[in-house]
Amino acid sequence: MKKFAIAIHGGAGTILPSLMTPEKELLYRNALKAATEAGLAILKKGSSSLDAVEAAVMYLEDFPLFNAGKGAVFTNAGTHEMDASIMEGLNLEAGAVSGVSHIKNPIQLARLIKEQSGHVYLSGLPAEQFAQSCGMVLEPSSYFYTEERYKQWQQVKDSDTYQLDHSDKIEQGEKKFGTVGAVALDQHGNLAAATSTGGMTNKRFGRVGDTPIIGAGTYANNATCAISCTGHGEFFMRAVVAYDISCLMAYKGLTLQEACRLVVNDKLVKMGGEGGLVAIDSHGNIALPFNSEGMYRAWASATELVQTAIYKD
Amino acid sequence: MKKFAIAIHGGAGTILPSLMTPEKELLYRNALKAATEAGLAILKKGSSSLDAVEAAVMYLEDFPLFNAGKGAVFTNAGTHEMDASIMEGLNLEAGAVSGVSHIKNPIQLARLIKEQSGHVYLSGLPAEQFAQSCGMVLEPSSYFYTEERYKQWQQVKDSDTYQLDHSDKIEQGEKKFGTVGAVALDQHGNLAAATSTGGMTNKRFGRVGDTPIIGAGTYANNATCAISCTGHGEFFMRAVVAYDISCLMAYKGLTLQEACRLVVNDKLVKMGGEGGLVAIDSHGNIALPFNSEGMYRAWASATELVQTAIYKD
Repeated sequence: MKKFAIAIHGGAGTILPSLMTPEKELLYRNALKAATEAGLAILKKGSSSLDAVEAAVMYLEDFPLFNAGKGAVFTNAGTHEMDASIMEGLNLEAGAVSGVSHIKNPIQLARLIKEQSGHVYLSGLPAEQFAQSCGMVLEPSSYFYTEERYKQWQQVKDSDTYQLDHSDKIEQGEKKFGTVGAVALDQHGNLAAATSTGGMTNKRFGRVGDTPIIGAGTYANNATCAISCTGHGEFFMRAVVAYDISCLMAYKGLTLQEACRLVVNDKLVKMGGEGGLVAIDSHGNIALPFNSEGMYRAWASATELVQTAIYKD
Repeated sequence: MKKFAIAIHGGAGTILPSLMTPEKELLYRNALKAATEAGLAILKKGSSSLDAVEAAVMYLEDFPLFNAGKGAVFTNAGTHEMDASIMEGLNLEAGAVSGVSHIKNPIQLARLIKEQSGHVYLSGLPAEQFAQSCGMVLEPSSYFYTEERYKQWQQVKDSDTYQLDHSDKIEQGEKKFGTVGAVALDQHGNLAAATSTGGMTNKRFGRVGDTPIIGAGTYANNATCAISCTGHGEFFMRAVVAYDISCLMAYKGLTLQEACRLVVNDKLVKMGGEGGLVAIDSHGNIALPFNSEGMYRAWASATELVQTAIYKD
């Protein structure tokens, strides 16, 4: 059987056993497992890594505990502003979207942009008009409402504070970078990466993070690797994290593991950039580095059943 | 005297002597010269490369023949949507903005975002609100009106065609990627890069190009180089052009010239990505590669008076 593999994440940050209930941990692990299985089933039947990462991310977007799609956090204005991007390692084709408020699955729109817009990156309300012109149905704002996110927002909405998903003030030291993502290798040797986020609670001024930025939050190239990031986006943009890993492999001959360790556990740490990423290379090697307390993650391959993890090993 | 140098561009594309009048060429050359001198004067007195690239780009934004600031092209909706970004090689700090319609000098707003927002990238109307909260005055849409741009838009506005500044249909084969940008090295050894654009004539759906993307249209790192791109942005984003040049220098030991040639005249050409860039390294070496017919460009240094060029050598 030919090689195939997938790895996903549901965000990184101050995720500690002491802040988790067994019931909530089970909910997270089950969701990570189901999302990975959704992608794995596609890879198993010989379909594309692009389909697999889209399916895995859609599952995570639909699951309300992760900060993407349903469950996206509230902005300062009480709205939801979501970003996503997707990239295909075979041809370096990419699609990205930022600041959409009525798209059930932003990753689907990112793929639609890649395939039907003639562009790479569309933004804001006009991106929703593009979605409609392609037959995509817009969701009312109420679809994205969850009580937990609303409460988080109420706690900080009259302040100038923005929060990276859960923040210090809310849950005893928890700071979580809410993003979801997936990378995969299919049986044809093609890599793909996808990332989706609801941004920061109480964020203002149309802030865009690394999620829709090709090269920062998402990158895929059959010659090197596929990467999906989660973390303090400002640092990931300034460090061009995803493409940096690809370049360290292509130009310096580092392995995926070596490149990931250098970027996540050395360069980003020195800058003060907290977070992590999931990565896969063209041989199916997987790396899941993070420099925070934890990262919701899962992986599987042609020869390995789904594994889930949350904390440091 | 310590080294310092600056290079600027005013866009690349099908710019041919046969499509130019002597009067118009003089206008362009004078504007390129004046913009370079604005930056050079700052470098000469020992101020920062960041101030120099901002001043040069502001001059180009204020000059109506270039597609940025005053002179920005019209969108499909008859509006102006401008993008810009700036980066400081000393500390990898960066600021970016996209989709603003009432900012006289988007490069100033990009710098303000870098220095006062706590973020890297703000987008759309909320970015204008941030500008106002910092005391920046918004301009009425009429400020950005120019007759030439209006006529260009009228010719295509009822079509689905978008145009990269001037396009085939309008001026006998001219296709111009309207962007302005600057890179500089100051006497303290610090590099900086800045890029600003009015986007594509008749563009729809909130399209974002490479200009506001750190790593694609703009990058600066004292360890390698500073880069400002102009071209068909979709390709520049997928190729992560600016950071690719930096990585080829850092990880593969290429010179600035070698890295620029590989990316602009080989990799981008193979992808079908037309355009160019201006680049400078920490020794003050300058590269001005492009794979189109021409690129509006100018450069100067501590030892060389301002030079301007438009066509291939």
